[in-house]
Amino acid sequence: MKTFKIQSPDQAIVAPLTQKINKKTKPVGSLADLEDIAIKIGTIQQTLFPKLSKPTIVLFAADHGIAEDNVVNPNPQEVTWQMVYNFIKGGAGINVFTNQHNIDLKIVDSGVKYDFENCEGLIHEKIALGTQNYLHGPAMTKEQCDTCIEKGAEIAANIHAKGSNIIGFGEMGIGNTSSSSLLMSKFLDIPIEDCVGKGAGLHNVGVQNKKKVLRAVIDRHSLVSSPEEVLQTFGGFEIAMIAGAILQAAELKMILLIDGFIITAALLAASKINPAVVDYCIFSHTSGEPGHQKLLEYFKGKPLLNLGLRLGEGTGAAIAYPLVQSAVNIVNNLSSFDHANVNDKVN
Amino acid sequence: MKTFKIQSPDQAIVAPLTQKINKKTKPVGSLADLEDIAIKIGTIQQTLFPKLSKPTIVLFAADHGIAEDNVVNPNPQEVTWQMVYNFIKGGAGINVFTNQHNIDLKIVDSGVKYDFENCEGLIHEKIALGTQNYLHGPAMTKEQCDTCIEKGAEIAANIHAKGSNIIGFGEMGIGNTSSSSLLMSKFLDIPIEDCVGKGAGLHNVGVQNKKKVLRAVIDRHSLVSSPEEVLQTFGGFEIAMIAGAILQAAELKMILLIDGFIITAALLAASKINPAVVDYCIFSHTSGEPGHQKLLEYFKGKPLLNLGLRLGEGTGAAIAYPLVQSAVNIVNNLSSFDHANVNDKVN
Repeated sequence: MKTFKIQSPDQAIVAPLTQKINKKTKPVGSLADLEDIAIKIGTIQQTLFPKLSKPTIVLFAADHGIAEDNVVNPNPQEVTWQMVYNFIKGGAGINVFTNQHNIDLKIVDSGVKYDFENCEGLIHEKIALGTQNYLHGPAMTKEQCDTCIEKGAEIAANIHAKGSNIIGFGEMGIGNTSSSSLLMSKFLDIPIEDCVGKGAGLHNVGVQNKKKVLRAVIDRHSLVSSPEEVLQTFGGFEIAMIAGAILQAAELKMILLIDGFIITAALLAASKINPAVVDYCIFSHTSGEPGHQKLLEYFKGKPLLNLGLRLGEGTGAAIAYPLVQSAVNIVNNLSSFDHANVNDKVN
Repeated sequence: MKTFKIQSPDQAIVAPLTQKINKKTKPVGSLADLEDIAIKIGTIQQTLFPKLSKPTIVLFAADHGIAEDNVVNPNPQEVTWQMVYNFIKGGAGINVFTNQHNIDLKIVDSGVKYDFENCEGLIHEKIALGTQNYLHGPAMTKEQCDTCIEKGAEIAANIHAKGSNIIGFGEMGIGNTSSSSLLMSKFLDIPIEDCVGKGAGLHNVGVQNKKKVLRAVIDRHSLVSSPEEVLQTFGGFEIAMIAGAILQAAELKMILLIDGFIITAALLAASKINPAVVDYCIFSHTSGEPGHQKLLEYFKGKPLLNLGLRLGEGTGAAIAYPLVQSAVNIVNNLSSFDHANVNDKVN
């Protein structure tokens, strides 16, 4: 598997960044979480003048063997390819929000069970027509998993090469909350039953059944242990590519805008391969999927938003972006006490 | 006192609005709180095609008699007028965020203890050079309070006349968290001690002292009871003008973007004068000031953001605005299942 050289940012700049923000015309600390984000970005960029350029969200789509039987997913598998066309045509939730905020959107076919032929605007990196069903064997081969990491890394590197320094991730794949629950259960040693939710809209009976099916999957693969093996066994092609993109983007010192449950599960896989990725992450929102809260606790992540969203596609990252921009604007555009002739003496 | 005719919006449109949103290419309900905001706006505007036009934040500034002795406030009183100049010059937090989101910003001198002479860009509606100290008597006369309501209403009506249908409110006034705590305690019958926080930055000893002082104020004015009397006794000029602006904007069926603790206290006063104002409110953020949470519970308000902000100025409303726009964009720009050829059959 490709390896990544990820450096944790030098923390020496935190003090001067904090000092700069404390001289702004506002009570000290009064912009709270936005100040924390500002300091994080200044630290990643090692500058007192942080800047966001060419924000990009890259959405990876793929199908899952488990979804063919409709035992874990309320929606039929063909919704994956139908939604890919919807993304390309600009009609989906993620299009609405990236358009609103001038975020560049890239759509990747990581392994959708459909032949898109020469569909323009789509990045064609199909590994196969969906993963294998992990009820019967590993979701993918070692080679497929390695290729996913490489392709994801390549895509992130290309986005960086075009001048972007902040990248968000989206996903589409009927059945991919199951994959995420399995990764979470295995990596964090939490019973699978506590990692499962209603996904895109299962009812209670469906959730119970999903738990039963995924328990069988976990039991079948009880000997799997290395991060690569876990990803290969339970991952989707889109999830493995996202893990690769995360690792590469962190190596390139980009800011990583982490969306909801599935993207955080991909981050979990990436962090097991190289823990330093976490230093580059901003958590955008808390998903309505119950497992997400536990994942966030593991990362000590405090997301910017908590609106109950459970759409995926990277939508949480897209709508959180203006807050990240606000954090940067505080550092660059807010007047300081001396410059504005405002008294900063606290009695 | 001026009276307002505020109609609660007809709820008959909620069903067709919900139906329209449920046909969008996303799992039903998956945009959660944003869908609720979309339905609220469609209901206020009585349309399936809601629209936000000329978003405006109007910031009212005034001084408080109580602040002269520095018993409740960490910052000296002159910070009020210094910050007004900072707003006019464009250097404050609210300027940074309104610039970022193309929100029109109006600054009103409601009663700052400073002569701004011919300061351009400032709306001059000074009632007096600060309120009286409510430790010794009512903060303002009945006439002053009535004038505040009228002037606030006039300003909101002017903003509406220029084509705005969404208005946020900001405030500046050293000592005005004390005024807000008093209004909250009196209107909601909560002990003053539970309504007091550190404001712009008091330390623990300061908070204890603030509680002691405000307890004396509450005890001194124990017979005050009507909404108008309460506002007159404890209010600031900026708070009373905001109450007037809220009442007028609701009468004009505008969307009201409610900021933090002080603005919610002004809303509380307005709602005691006419309860229907609440139907027009979107709560933008939960303030770091502890009393705010209780105020929000009273209004059953679920704010869009919870970032620990305690700057005031309307900053929470400004940074929440893009989320409100996102909610409207969902209704107008997201494709429907039939239009996008996406299968909406749930198994």
